[in-house]
Amino acid sequence: MSGTAINVIGGTLVETRKYDVLGIGNAIVDVISHSDDTFLKNNGLAKGAMTLIDAEAAEGLYRRMGSAVESSGGSAANTIAGLAALGGRGAFIGKVRNDQLGGIFAHDIRALGVAFDTAAATTGAPTARCLIFVTPDAQRTMQTFLGASATLTPADIDADMVRASAITYLEGYLWDPPPAKEAFEKAATIAHEAGNMVALSLSDAFCVDRHRADFLRLVEGFVDILFANESEILSLYQVDDFDAALQRVRGHCQVAALTRSEKGSVVVASDEVHVIDAVKVPKVIDTTGAGDLYAAGFLFGLTQGRSLHDCGRIGSICSGEIISHYGARPEASLAELVSQALR
Amino acid sequence: MSGTAINVIGGTLVETRKYDVLGIGNAIVDVISHSDDTFLKNNGLAKGAMTLIDAEAAEGLYRRMGSAVESSGGSAANTIAGLAALGGRGAFIGKVRNDQLGGIFAHDIRALGVAFDTAAATTGAPTARCLIFVTPDAQRTMQTFLGASATLTPADIDADMVRASAITYLEGYLWDPPPAKEAFEKAATIAHEAGNMVALSLSDAFCVDRHRADFLRLVEGFVDILFANESEILSLYQVDDFDAALQRVRGHCQVAALTRSEKGSVVVASDEVHVIDAVKVPKVIDTTGAGDLYAAGFLFGLTQGRSLHDCGRIGSICSGEIISHYGARPEASLAELVSQALR
Repeated sequence: MSGTAINVIGGTLVETRKYDVLGIGNAIVDVISHSDDTFLKNNGLAKGAMTLIDAEAAEGLYRRMGSAVESSGGSAANTIAGLAALGGRGAFIGKVRNDQLGGIFAHDIRALGVAFDTAAATTGAPTARCLIFVTPDAQRTMQTFLGASATLTPADIDADMVRASAITYLEGYLWDPPPAKEAFEKAATIAHEAGNMVALSLSDAFCVDRHRADFLRLVEGFVDILFANESEILSLYQVDDFDAALQRVRGHCQVAALTRSEKGSVVVASDEVHVIDAVKVPKVIDTTGAGDLYAAGFLFGLTQGRSLHDCGRIGSICSGEIISHYGARPEASLAELVSQALR
Repeated sequence: MSGTAINVIGGTLVETRKYDVLGIGNAIVDVISHSDDTFLKNNGLAKGAMTLIDAEAAEGLYRRMGSAVESSGGSAANTIAGLAALGGRGAFIGKVRNDQLGGIFAHDIRALGVAFDTAAATTGAPTARCLIFVTPDAQRTMQTFLGASATLTPADIDADMVRASAITYLEGYLWDPPPAKEAFEKAATIAHEAGNMVALSLSDAFCVDRHRADFLRLVEGFVDILFANESEILSLYQVDDFDAALQRVRGHCQVAALTRSEKGSVVVASDEVHVIDAVKVPKVIDTTGAGDLYAAGFLFGLTQGRSLHDCGRIGSICSGEIISHYGARPEASLAELVSQALR
């Protein structure tokens, strides 16, 4: 497809769909605490990464973790929460258990006006949680127990909801649990058959490492809009140089939005390249959710018919807000921040 | 008792006790969200107050509440958490249910090094939660479902723990559920029999209104150290004038620490009156826990043998930290803040 096709997003496609973006991802409650490098080292945690852990490891680590705060999380869920906070029409598919944390997750996303109807599991593992250790340098290290969210199956994919969404947005993390991966492919197929678009976030460089062949196939064959940070896109193409990765991705999907932390982001389409500055924040407190909220802003712009450059700017504004406080769900009014900046 | 007796707190009494302060109170998880005055009005919520609600009302209100963040709370529990963060030796008695929120409460207080051994209820109401609506003026409005915490009974009072604590600190809120009130009186009696001190926070002007006669009797007969804010102390003595309340309380307990928001605090003992400035913060974000953390700082100072004036200053520093962010548990290192200020 060409750069022109993207403009359709703001037109007929969005107008004739009930939802702007449907997110499909792990339904997780974040457990956030302050930490230091010594704790990470003593507990053998890979700083800056997302590592999957089982129930027993999660319990042991939680016992050693400091006093924490709980907040709904999940990568794609954060993105849809951000989209809704901007005024977009969001929907979400993900699996919780019918326990207290599941109730919190469902409440928080619905409270933002997001359609969330996936049936909660009534047996089996509890709702997923992600133990997040934020070090003084604002880096976050994540240890995730997938719990009930790993039991998402193709049966949970509401085909009508996928058809009713201009963009179906998938998180790479969903590739980890095998039945969720099938759900992921089912959703992407339905979306395309309905003439909708498919977006993917690569999630994490280690996640790319675990599923490189699959992700390459997906990006080439399925994905219209790709989100990745620098280390993820380098890992995908196994290159050392950002520009080399940029050239590779350019031919593979319609739009790629590549984030580079304090260096901002680069948005590439077949015939366009936009370099967008990061939004300066007084103090970076916690980088959790930076990529998720960039995607929220970008997808909101896209479904509002904004130029790719503006989409990138909106993404930067949203990620700037999220890194200026603890947690991956917005505290300030994103809609106000964006309307002020783009006035 | 005279002002001199208070100095004992820093000496033999503290040295011969395992814990500096034992808090007894409701074991609650806070559910904190941003709100506005219109929401409070539409839902008939009494701004600035703590109102008790039943399970059904809590569920209905939660459904209407915005996206939230969960954090361990409870008035006396916040105080003990603050004391522990300052380096004090804390213990806590309060009742949770053996559910996910109960697990969160227990984890958070133990993670700070606080001794917390009260058996969780295995049947009945779930762990208590307090729905907190923070308005843009930083005021918090609290709607509390007491749940399992209302099932605290005298049997839950670990007499050895009370004997081993230099100060037993009770929250006025505990007076609401009748069996907890008996537990409260049992603890105060054991504490005094062991030669320890009893501290009380009046908690809330409406709470004082509900239990005025009991509180007057307690303050005169049981309480060595009283914490109250301006509206609470005016309500207790049913006077309109702060100075009149000050004169009344002076003869009733050994020390009274009266907080007055941005006007700072006044500490009175039989022969001393100290006026302490509030600590200036760049922006007041959320006043939840201001009184709880003032008490934490004050009690920490007292058990460290500090002068009453210093105790008030440490209280102000701690409440200044807590009102500069959302939530009632400290984010910054209180110990560092205090050691810098008192250097």
